[in-house]
Amino acid sequence: MENALNLDTVVLAENEEDMIILDQTLLPNETKYLTLNKAEDIWEAIYKLRVRGAPAIGVAGAYGYYVLARQFDTEDMDEFVKKCTEMMEYLNSSRPTAVNLSWALNRMHEVLLSEKEGKTVAQMKERLKEEANAVREEDIQISRNIGAYGYELLKAMGDEVGIMTHCNAGTLATAKYGTALAPVYIALENGWDPKKIHVYCDETRPLLQGARLSAYEMQAAGVDTYVQCDNMASYTMKSGKIGIIFVGCDRVAANGDFANKIGTSGVAIIAKHYGIPFYVCAPSSTIDMTMESGDEIHIEQRKPEEVTEMWYKERMAPEGVGVVNPAFDVTDHSLVTGIITEKGIAYAPFKESFEKMGIKPVTKYVDKK
Amino acid sequence: MENALNLDTVVLAENEEDMIILDQTLLPNETKYLTLNKAEDIWEAIYKLRVRGAPAIGVAGAYGYYVLARQFDTEDMDEFVKKCTEMMEYLNSSRPTAVNLSWALNRMHEVLLSEKEGKTVAQMKERLKEEANAVREEDIQISRNIGAYGYELLKAMGDEVGIMTHCNAGTLATAKYGTALAPVYIALENGWDPKKIHVYCDETRPLLQGARLSAYEMQAAGVDTYVQCDNMASYTMKSGKIGIIFVGCDRVAANGDFANKIGTSGVAIIAKHYGIPFYVCAPSSTIDMTMESGDEIHIEQRKPEEVTEMWYKERMAPEGVGVVNPAFDVTDHSLVTGIITEKGIAYAPFKESFEKMGIKPVTKYVDKK
Repeated sequence: MENALNLDTVVLAENEEDMIILDQTLLPNETKYLTLNKAEDIWEAIYKLRVRGAPAIGVAGAYGYYVLARQFDTEDMDEFVKKCTEMMEYLNSSRPTAVNLSWALNRMHEVLLSEKEGKTVAQMKERLKEEANAVREEDIQISRNIGAYGYELLKAMGDEVGIMTHCNAGTLATAKYGTALAPVYIALENGWDPKKIHVYCDETRPLLQGARLSAYEMQAAGVDTYVQCDNMASYTMKSGKIGIIFVGCDRVAANGDFANKIGTSGVAIIAKHYGIPFYVCAPSSTIDMTMESGDEIHIEQRKPEEVTEMWYKERMAPEGVGVVNPAFDVTDHSLVTGIITEKGIAYAPFKESFEKMGIKPVTKYVDKK
Repeated sequence: MENALNLDTVVLAENEEDMIILDQTLLPNETKYLTLNKAEDIWEAIYKLRVRGAPAIGVAGAYGYYVLARQFDTEDMDEFVKKCTEMMEYLNSSRPTAVNLSWALNRMHEVLLSEKEGKTVAQMKERLKEEANAVREEDIQISRNIGAYGYELLKAMGDEVGIMTHCNAGTLATAKYGTALAPVYIALENGWDPKKIHVYCDETRPLLQGARLSAYEMQAAGVDTYVQCDNMASYTMKSGKIGIIFVGCDRVAANGDFANKIGTSGVAIIAKHYGIPFYVCAPSSTIDMTMESGDEIHIEQRKPEEVTEMWYKERMAPEGVGVVNPAFDVTDHSLVTGIITEKGIAYAPFKESFEKMGIKPVTKYVDKK
């Protein structure tokens, strides 16, 4: 567990000028940290999934905002604001479906707009650093709370449990603990025997975040860890080994529909068929109360080569064939047992449940359909 | 279409001493034929999926039986029978779940046992050659009939259709036409515009038969062809592009439960969720009336490296992690719209439907649980 939780996904460098990310595209074979301070490099790191996972992208967005704002060489506040606005829009274009990115960027920008009066640019830069650090600290606390609520579900199942997860929503996807895998870490902190926690990771084609990342961090935590092809989820669920399913999410609509890594909706449909509880682990920042349903969620289409060529020694489909490659799919709320937030677990009807938790419509999203 | 249907999957060489197979492990990048006449090579070709697909394995079993029997250098019929028996059991061990293999081997062996009286070994060898050729010819006719029944379903949907399939049950999986893809070939023979037939092929991890084989032969037939990761099936079905699903099968139980490539049961569950017709294309030789349900079907577990390393430039999961790798899963009959055989389409209750078609219990299977 120490290993996994000592992994730093996104941090501010000690010089307080650069941000440092763990390049997750190289896992599980190589552990390499990247020091970033250029706009293009930060954009590329988010676009290429070197940093990935909704909360971690939020932290990267906040640090990216600060690291770049810090470099704007002006004493004029209006010019500083103008440059920050352009920079924020540029960074936001790197992952349009990731609501945490625009959330964190907007949060940083709101601090600038609302607190700039009476401050120098230098003072404002210092304030933005504090805010970016706060985004990270709050993320850790959010993950910890999600893990604690999820852990209550595990406790109710006895002292041994089989968990299935899709993609990676672990400590690597956040500042610490993760969302979907946070209940496992909290169980371990509470003294559970790691050998009695059996985690089945869908490999999650085409980017293999499950095989590369979830399996990596669960194995590092000492948990009994399995990798399976995505198409084996039905087989494993039917075997009776799975007591509960935890997945992360990129965006939740007011009615409980949610977008997550491609394949999640299939897992949910199959789980319902076998009667296995299916929980979504969602920081409240991913809940978009301005969206009535998942129909409004924009689905990013990615390059065909990710399906036909990436990772492989040679091309694995005939040249010229059509390729389907959506990054996400939307899972209907009717398939969801509960949505675990840092404020508690929401159950259907989800909109009412969210409102009772005090989750309010956010002010601005730039990437609606 | 000419290209696809001119592919010879398994044939007897012109010298009538060797068998020739298309090495499907090299597709879609290389088209290479292997000439086989040694027991170990034939066993390896079946085990390593160089020839694969239930009906093609049957044809390979029949030719394998003949090619090896032909080489037994004895005039003594009892010795010949003994050698054939040992050889048959050896070949049968190469793919224990593939019912067509044991079916074809048993058929060849029955010919030997029932017709040996009054014949010389040389005459018997000639007779076995005829029988192996008959297995291939009958397979072509069976596929053609399955395609014709499936084509009736396509016609009922209009003049344009979206089809989803899993794994490869095309012409490459049989002597000609295929099973799940046979309706497409028959539609083309009936003059359908190939651009109005949209075929979505699940890539079918870990061996990628969909991406490598189904996409290859559908593209060769001129059809509008797409490859998708297995976990994208739900996304594509939800999009409304899929009118019908055709899959092949390796074994059908009397109640309509069936074993097919891993992932098929998930596709069936998702199809039912979206209300999309799900048809199994099954030569009657794959229907095992001695099995009451799919619970009796033995599921072959394959090597972990197929999931973690095969095809890749480097290992894609941490060393030492557990791996789930069943070759097949069993789909419950309640998820099946119909089972298309060469004798017609069976509907629930399947056992009665099979009996009405005249499908009888077969005499012997060696690989029950």
